[in-house]
Amino acid sequence: MKKSHNITMLGAGLIGTFYTMTIHGQRSRDRVQTICALTDEEAKAFAQKWGIPKWTSDLAKAISDPETDIVVVGLPNNFHKKAVLLAAAAGKAVLCTKPLARNATEALEILEAVEKAGIFSGYLEDLVYTPKTLKSLASVKNGGVGKVLWVRSRESHSGPHSAWFWDKEIAGGGAIVDMGCHCIEIIRNFIGKNIKPIEVMCVADTLVHPIAAEDSGIGLIRFENQAIGQFEVSWTFRGGMDLRDEVAGTEGTIWLNHFLRTGYEMFTAAGRGGYVAEKAESEKGWLFPVGDEVHELGYVHMFSDMFDALDESREPMETFLDGYVVNAIIDACYKAAKTKRWEPVKLERWEGKAKKAKAGAIKKTIKTRFSLVKEERMPDGKIKQILQDWKTGRIIQKIKSL
Amino acid sequence: MKKSHNITMLGAGLIGTFYTMTIHGQRSRDRVQTICALTDEEAKAFAQKWGIPKWTSDLAKAISDPETDIVVVGLPNNFHKKAVLLAAAAGKAVLCTKPLARNATEALEILEAVEKAGIFSGYLEDLVYTPKTLKSLASVKNGGVGKVLWVRSRESHSGPHSAWFWDKEIAGGGAIVDMGCHCIEIIRNFIGKNIKPIEVMCVADTLVHPIAAEDSGIGLIRFENQAIGQFEVSWTFRGGMDLRDEVAGTEGTIWLNHFLRTGYEMFTAAGRGGYVAEKAESEKGWLFPVGDEVHELGYVHMFSDMFDALDESREPMETFLDGYVVNAIIDACYKAAKTKRWEPVKLERWEGKAKKAKAGAIKKTIKTRFSLVKEERMPDGKIKQILQDWKTGRIIQKIKSL
Amino acid sequence: MKKSHNITMLGAGLIGTFYTMTIHGQRSRDRVQTICALTDEEAKAFAQKWGIPKWTSDLAKAISDPETDIVVVGLPNNFHKKAVLLAAAAGKAVLCTKPLARNATEALEILEAVEKAGIFSGYLEDLVYTPKTLKSLASVKNGGVGKVLWVRSRESHSGPHSAWFWDKEIAGGGAIVDMGCHCIEIIRNFIGKNIKPIEVMCVADTLVHPIAAEDSGIGLIRFENQAIGQFEVSWTFRGGMDLRDEVAGTEGTIWLNHFLRTGYEMFTAAGRGGYVAEKAESEKGWLFPVGDEVHELGYVHMFSDMFDALDESREPMETFLDGYVVNAIIDACYKAAKTKRWEPVKLERWEGKAKKAKAGAIKKTIKTRFSLVKEERMPDGKIKQILQDWKTGRIIQKIKSL
Amino acid sequence: MKKSHNITMLGAGLIGTFYTMTIHGQRSRDRVQTICALTDEEAKAFAQKWGIPKWTSDLAKAISDPETDIVVVGLPNNFHKKAVLLAAAAGKAVLCTKPLARNATEALEILEAVEKAGIFSGYLEDLVYTPKTLKSLASVKNGGVGKVLWVRSRESHSGPHSAWFWDKEIAGGGAIVDMGCHCIEIIRNFIGKNIKPIEVMCVADTLVHPIAAEDSGIGLIRFENQAIGQFEVSWTFRGGMDLRDEVAGTEGTIWLNHFLRTGYEMFTAAGRGGYVAEKAESEKGWLFPVGDEVHELGYVHMFSDMFDALDESREPMETFLDGYVVNAIIDACYKAAKTKRWEPVKLERWEGKAKKAKAGAIKKTIKTRFSLVKEERMPDGKIKQILQDWKTGRIIQKIKSL
Repeated sequence: MKKSHNITMLGAGLIGTFYTMTIHGQRSRDRVQTICALTDEEAKAFAQKWGIPKWTSDLAKAISDPETDIVVVGLPNNFHKKAVLLAAAAGKAVLCTKPLARNATEALEILEAVEKAGIFSGYLEDLVYTPKTLKSLASVKNGGVGKVLWVRSRESHSGPHSAWFWDKEIAGGGAIVDMGCHCIEIIRNFIGKNIKPIEVMCVADTLVHPIAAEDSGIGLIRFENQAIGQFEVSWTFRGGMDLRDEVAGTEGTIWLNHFLRTGYEMFTAAGRGGYVAEKAESEKGWLFPVGDEVHELGYVHMFSDMFDALDESREPMETFLDGYVVNAIIDACYKAAKTKRWEPVKLERWEGKAKKAKAGAIKKTIKTRFSLVKEERMPDGKIKQILQDWKTGRIIQKIKSL
Repeated sequence: MKKSHNITMLGAGLIGTFYTMTIHGQRSRDRVQTICALTDEEAKAFAQKWGIPKWTSDLAKAISDPETDIVVVGLPNNFHKKAVLLAAAAGKAVLCTKPLARNATEALEILEAVEKAGIFSGYLEDLVYTPKTLKSLASVKNGGVGKVLWVRSRESHSGPHSAWFWDKEIAGGGAIVDMGCHCIEIIRNFIGKNIKPIEVMCVADTLVHPIAAEDSGIGLIRFENQAIGQFEVSWTFRGGMDLRDEVAGTEGTIWLNHFLRTGYEMFTAAGRGGYVAEKAESEKGWLFPVGDEVHELGYVHMFSDMFDALDESREPMETFLDGYVVNAIIDACYKAAKTKRWEPVKLERWEGKAKKAKAGAIKKTIKTRFSLVKEERMPDGKIKQILQDWKTGRIIQKIKSL
Repeated sequence: MKKSHNITMLGAGLIGTFYTMTIHGQRSRDRVQTICALTDEEAKAFAQKWGIPKWTSDLAKAISDPETDIVVVGLPNNFHKKAVLLAAAAGKAVLCTKPLARNATEALEILEAVEKAGIFSGYLEDLVYTPKTLKSLASVKNGGVGKVLWVRSRESHSGPHSAWFWDKEIAGGGAIVDMGCHCIEIIRNFIGKNIKPIEVMCVADTLVHPIAAEDSGIGLIRFENQAIGQFEVSWTFRGGMDLRDEVAGTEGTIWLNHFLRTGYEMFTAAGRGGYVAEKAESEKGWLFPVGDEVHELGYVHMFSDMFDALDESREPMETFLDGYVVNAIIDACYKAAKTKRWEPVKLERWEGKAKKAKAGAIKKTIKTRFSLVKEERMPDGKIKQILQDWKTGRIIQKIKSL
Repeated sequence: MKKSHNITMLGAGLIGTFYTMTIHGQRSRDRVQTICALTDEEAKAFAQKWGIPKWTSDLAKAISDPETDIVVVGLPNNFHKKAVLLAAAAGKAVLCTKPLARNATEALEILEAVEKAGIFSGYLEDLVYTPKTLKSLASVKNGGVGKVLWVRSRESHSGPHSAWFWDKEIAGGGAIVDMGCHCIEIIRNFIGKNIKPIEVMCVADTLVHPIAAEDSGIGLIRFENQAIGQFEVSWTFRGGMDLRDEVAGTEGTIWLNHFLRTGYEMFTAAGRGGYVAEKAESEKGWLFPVGDEVHELGYVHMFSDMFDALDESREPMETFLDGYVVNAIIDACYKAAKTKRWEPVKLERWEGKAKKAKAGAIKKTIKTRFSLVKEERMPDGKIKQILQDWKTGRIIQKIKSL
């Protein structure tokens, strides 16, 4: 039988709200026991709204609450390290929101702290847990798309709600560290977590907002098996929140749309329909709400996996090591955006050796003089073959009679 | 604090499986304690698969299990009455799958039995609880689409998996009683449960399958406030399961697609992607899976509402009275399909008097000689008015200068 | 080599504009030579805008222009008969917009007039000629969906631009005669023009607008081969123009969306994007324009077919006889809406005898005691058969071992 | 009055077929008079199929046909220069398919040849002319999306039909030169043809096919006003032909889908529906045909513009200079793919000076100490402002009372 858990929630902003809604969700056995916010006032208001018995603005006190067994970190990026280290010192299980840290150096300290303390830890990368993503990952594992060649992941909206996200110092960057971390981990899951990311190319631009951090980014990640990951993030998108993933494989294709086109379409001239969805831009005209946001965004499956993993003494699907790898890729992206060339991903920790694929493993090895490029049946019933002649380097065409 | 419930599950078919998966769902506090199937063998296999402590093929024994406090009826339609009456006799809370009964007479007996026994009861109409439907209902209540004029609900697929559905005697009909019950209750929720259904028109045809029951049906339901409900059901649809609802109001429109177009699209030439979704037709080519089926189909929110209602001593959103009204509408549909004319809906029980709307309440009352039909701004900036002259009966056009 | 045609265009409203844009379209060999409008002023403005050499408000003069060989009727419904009769007297080819007339009696007079005069005539039912519809019709003819069982066609928007449409006397009805005529002919094309429509059921309501004519209608048409046509029309729809068709066959399904979801999506906060599309409701937020309206709406292919048919001395795809059948079905619909029962379609002219299908031709004839209802492979690899036992009337289930 | 043109068509492959279908299209005044193919046999078959009076395999003879006034080049890339030079020598108008040449050097020779000869020329870049693209370009010009920030264009399918495309020597490259040329010109049109492309970054991989040329490419183009163009091309895509464009602006968003999701959806178990669309992958299951291919792909509007431009003695929308710029960008892409860094676009010819935008023109200039990053209304009705303090570099948050 599963245990019930009591949680210390650190952070009373949007993410703390989503996390608490999820943990207190339908028929759940788990509860937030203590909430820690920036001020006592804020903490109290949050506690009263969500039926949480204890509140405080004292981080250390919240973490050391003897009645809780799990600490959930939902704080601004610059507090992640401090919070995790306190939890490690308290010997409690700790779950940390994305990104794990502002950069790989900080992430590595976090990772090593929990390893040293021997505590359970989990990386709260929700978008890997959306029901569509989980089912797609299962399909990919079953060979449904063949070998994965390219994965594109996009997250765009008009910009975050809280000030700290926009502050390069606190956040560790702009749109790339905020949303690219989602995309990169989605990409890694589809390509295979054991496939090493080798190098990255990146564009980071401040196109619209008067800020020092980038409000737009495009990144390309080359993996050791030649697969390419591509992310597109922006705080300049108009029309709501655009959350889409695409997987291109040798045998198939997957297109996921998590937010704006999910089979829920509404036109209203009245505009009194209430809350539409996170980052929705308008309240009139054609709107595209989502059904159950904490579910569609993966929070429900994420916390289930985390708490179940703890109960079952196994690793969760997303670990602090994953968070570290993501930070390392982001660091390389920021560097590439400056040097304007491909930059290597520097990983001091890497455990994907087991099933390590050979570089350029996708393309078929060529052994014969003629290799088949394409074969198709013509309208007259004959078979047309397009062949590469490796001796001359030319492409020839052959018609096979029946 | 919420209680935990122990459930006696009656039925080990597709619906029993979906229900059990849901009740045992993520971090849930509730458990199926006893499973009752047609044979001991079947019951045992089910129990082992889902980790259920007790199994039996003896209905009475399962219901009277002293360790369970709720009976869930997931049996063929012809067993609903027997099962609910036994639960009433045992004084246990009882939840019954859709349709409540094979016809209104039977449904009324069921309703009166639980009322007399004074037990908690709930009608398991899952499709009213899909996240998209719940959020849409909230929008409608907030005035997002103005006054609701028409609601169309469609459920179509290639036919049910179990033999008993196809047997008119056991099921009480064909596609209409099987799927029309969903559509009718969706319609009632959007138009307003307190608005009385007055009369129905219906087509029931056996177009493809060699059966006595109808495999296709279209129904029109006129409500006392002039709103129209329209359902379309079929066991002949090709391409998967088509689950769509549409709401047309004076101020807005809602389109819901629950299954085939939900932002999850996949092409596979390999066809090894595993299970796609309930009633998917193919395993190759373009497929349209759904993310988390028990969630998308409303099971999660349905059981949460049922168990929460029991804990909070309130009525659930869907009651046995609702089930009875649905059966009464279906009875009228079958009659209309035969007589080929509109037939009245006969309701021996009706509680929607409170907010009862006047007949034909939607259209504006006309008090002046000229009423405005339409007003639009012309490309030259002038305002064009189209007016009905009630004295002459003619429509005139007027240009208002600026 | 194709001829070039000179056209007399009757009507300078929205439909006259669309027709002229089409005829003067890309690299076209045909030209409107004379335009006839309600007033000289209106005619002159139209002529100047579209480069038409001659204008008039005199119907007879326009029709008898010796330099034109084709008369196109784009007038309000109550003028169709007069215009066609004048064209017949002038011995000119005549093309008439939809509906052919206000009712079947008038339509029959029109049909007989052109037959007696021996002139070429064509029924300008554009929506049958949309590129998607034409290609779908070809697929259906090739057996792509098997036998057609049901066809649903919908046209809905917020109401027509000109006053006369709203006037029951001039138009011959409301939304049903205005838009139902499109739907009915789309249905006839998919089910087969040689399949006789037998009877209809109809709802005609005035739900929103203060007019005498219906602003909403639903109709069901039963054909001699048991296929069902269903139309839904409304002048109360919010969100733009909803133009959708669905074909359900024994082997397949076709879904067409002609306007609101055609792969062209735009969000604008600026709202300076100009004209969106016919009957678009808003200029800000999410908009769904169409690419090339006269093409998407079928006008281009329609006039090509008409002029080519004239050049090749063959019948066009849509004839005045088709227009008459449509009017007869609409007449039956209006009657059924009043009597509230199925009403027969009265056809004084019918030519579909040739390939006439037997009533109820779709369902398989039953000859054996057990007929196969459904067969599916179970997860364990066995084949499950659901069978109807016609002796006992019960459905049984059989597992076939491998 | 428009003239009628007689055309010499060079090339009898897929592109020659599409071009001829278009030129001979509905009610057209223009005709292909002479067809030139690789062999006499092929030319004759083509001529008979499309009703073309003259055929030959002699390029020079076809071009010098005294009865034609326009030469259309639909040949493999390595023949473009030869064909255009012959047309220039013959003093005839010449239209050349995309790409203009295999590289910028060759393209420049072509451009200078027609300029020197003083003949009319046009670049047959069809995808810029799709009805959706044309209407979107008009919206963008009207300010519908504000300033354009990013444009993404994708073309992917399973690979071309003819052998020569796969031959690097003949084609000048692989997927990038074949399809990237479309994307680049779409990008240029949306960003503004007068905005200079400055530098490019590119990935070119051979992921699946056993060929020397790249079968996949991603490119990023930076323009002088800071806008970014992004193209994605592949010959490895599974599921049909993926043709999509996206425009992201400061005030809006445009999403175009030209092929796989255009409101035409079909499921068929029969698979006898005939030809689906160019590069469709399957004939059963869910299919996504397009309505009228030559129209959807822009051929109709393209030839109209070309012939009208000739008649009106003006430049067509797409010129040989555009073709040259596209080739120059592609050259830079191939170089960047090798050097793995951003490479400058080398343009020996550039005419976009007139309205030349300043570098980095999009972002607002900052003049005050605090600049507004974001303003939003909170649930409690207050206004929250997020501000950048340029003195301290930090982001602060302010609540404005009402």
